[in-house]
Amino acid sequence: MSLVVVGTVAFDAIETPFGKTDKILGGAATFIGLAAGKLEVKTKIVSVVGGDFPQEHIDLLNRQGVDTSGIKVIPEGKTFFWSGRYHNDMNARDTLVTELNVLADFDPVLPESYKDCTFLMLGNLTPQIQKRVIEQLPVRPKLIVMDTMNFWMNTAWDDLMEVIGMVDVLTINDEEARQLSGEYSLIRAARKIIGLGPKFLVIKKGEHGALLFNKDSVFFAPALPLEEVFDPTGAGDTFAGGFIGFLAKTGDISFENMKRAIIFGSAMASFTVEKFGTEGLQALSNGELNERIRIFSEMVQFDIELD
Amino acid sequence: MSLVVVGTVAFDAIETPFGKTDKILGGAATFIGLAAGKLEVKTKIVSVVGGDFPQEHIDLLNRQGVDTSGIKVIPEGKTFFWSGRYHNDMNARDTLVTELNVLADFDPVLPESYKDCTFLMLGNLTPQIQKRVIEQLPVRPKLIVMDTMNFWMNTAWDDLMEVIGMVDVLTINDEEARQLSGEYSLIRAARKIIGLGPKFLVIKKGEHGALLFNKDSVFFAPALPLEEVFDPTGAGDTFAGGFIGFLAKTGDISFENMKRAIIFGSAMASFTVEKFGTEGLQALSNGELNERIRIFSEMVQFDIELD
Repeated sequence: MSLVVVGTVAFDAIETPFGKTDKILGGAATFIGLAAGKLEVKTKIVSVVGGDFPQEHIDLLNRQGVDTSGIKVIPEGKTFFWSGRYHNDMNARDTLVTELNVLADFDPVLPESYKDCTFLMLGNLTPQIQKRVIEQLPVRPKLIVMDTMNFWMNTAWDDLMEVIGMVDVLTINDEEARQLSGEYSLIRAARKIIGLGPKFLVIKKGEHGALLFNKDSVFFAPALPLEEVFDPTGAGDTFAGGFIGFLAKTGDISFENMKRAIIFGSAMASFTVEKFGTEGLQALSNGELNERIRIFSEMVQFDIELD
Repeated sequence: MSLVVVGTVAFDAIETPFGKTDKILGGAATFIGLAAGKLEVKTKIVSVVGGDFPQEHIDLLNRQGVDTSGIKVIPEGKTFFWSGRYHNDMNARDTLVTELNVLADFDPVLPESYKDCTFLMLGNLTPQIQKRVIEQLPVRPKLIVMDTMNFWMNTAWDDLMEVIGMVDVLTINDEEARQLSGEYSLIRAARKIIGLGPKFLVIKKGEHGALLFNKDSVFFAPALPLEEVFDPTGAGDTFAGGFIGFLAKTGDISFENMKRAIIFGSAMASFTVEKFGTEGLQALSNGELNERIRIFSEMVQFDIELD
């Protein structure tokens, strides 16, 4: 199964209590692509970068199994740049700089070789761009997963609603689920959001894990409690990449298999937060991933016999 | 197995976005006792009330299988009173009134019939009082569980450390675990706290579930996502009562059985928050409890085969 990912490929500069980086490789599509690539899924990125984007980052993505032929290079432009500083508790951050640069006029064009994809991941971008990607596919993919954020709820409500109505799985965090639905209870929020179109909803709760909903069921996956969270940047995108990557690898989009996909996504995200940027994900081996999934399983397993 | 519970028996007046109550039955020992009583454990409360405490509340506790002979009545005194108002999101509350009343001079005296208890639950109270209860037991119980809160970390650190060193299980919330240990990572916090004496640590995370630690292992139990949280008062105490009640009922204090006890505690707490005060717990049937535990099991269950 092949996976197309649309999203940012960017420079990030990050400050945490543990240190700071210069401009390093970042962006939603980068993390999603690397995570899915780890699972040996043919992953194809649609994005845009400037002339300042180094060939070594492209080479890195290619080495990790990611097809970059859909990343448009605008030689006279500059790559999207984000800079942020995390607070001591790592749960809050301040954005220091956001330079859209080439992203401001991004009009995604899918290469012909991308158009037979069976899985589509819409990374967090303007709903308009997400929609234009869906519209370029001659045959609807088996599964479309969409990530978004509160910013688009505040600035592009109607467009957002339209795209949400076109996808199969929506991934958002708990505060965004509350904002999108106007409901505080996540059970009620999920019911309303599924009423907007998606058959599945994933609510990401960071260190508190993730919830998966369909119309009838709910699944709760913990986040692995970690000794140290070094840099949370990219955790949500890694989670999404592991999630859709696992589904694309297995070709099975049942609720049961989505549970497994959530566990894979959580496990992969736990490696991302242990290092700066994409380092943790790059270095990840299959053995380490399997070991962490084993720890996950043990951590939530219990056995109760009821009368 | 018999269980002794020391803690407050009190009046609560509660305001939530859904309504408000007059003075209703509350207090840590009340919720703990009712929860353990539901599991048919012989539960004996040590506490103090004033002459204003109605016989009907005592009758209610007795009907639910709770021995109240260790609740001292001070006819000329007034019962401990707490009043609070919950915010819209139910995760934060303001204390409106705290009248210690008879609790100010509470010196717990265990009736002879309490002294052979095999399980001891120290509800949240001054560490001094918790210690005096332990000291009155001629034989150390099989398991001592202690609840506490940040207030005692701020005002009675040395006493608190002494009692923590005397118990087997400590239950606190995540912020308190961080404060007690000086560590943000809950994994590190747990390691430090277990170094203070307790063999087990339960970290309560409210709507995000609970973690159980011993020296080597960690278990993560979700909280059931609820349609509506009506009144969170007593949820933590109900959880503790269900936890120690299940252990006392089964007589098994292994880590494996503590996992089950966590699930029972969480399930019982989910009934408490659905009604004002003790109403949800009072009305709870065995069938409803088992059904909710079944839902819990399904919600976290997954099956991954690794290469």
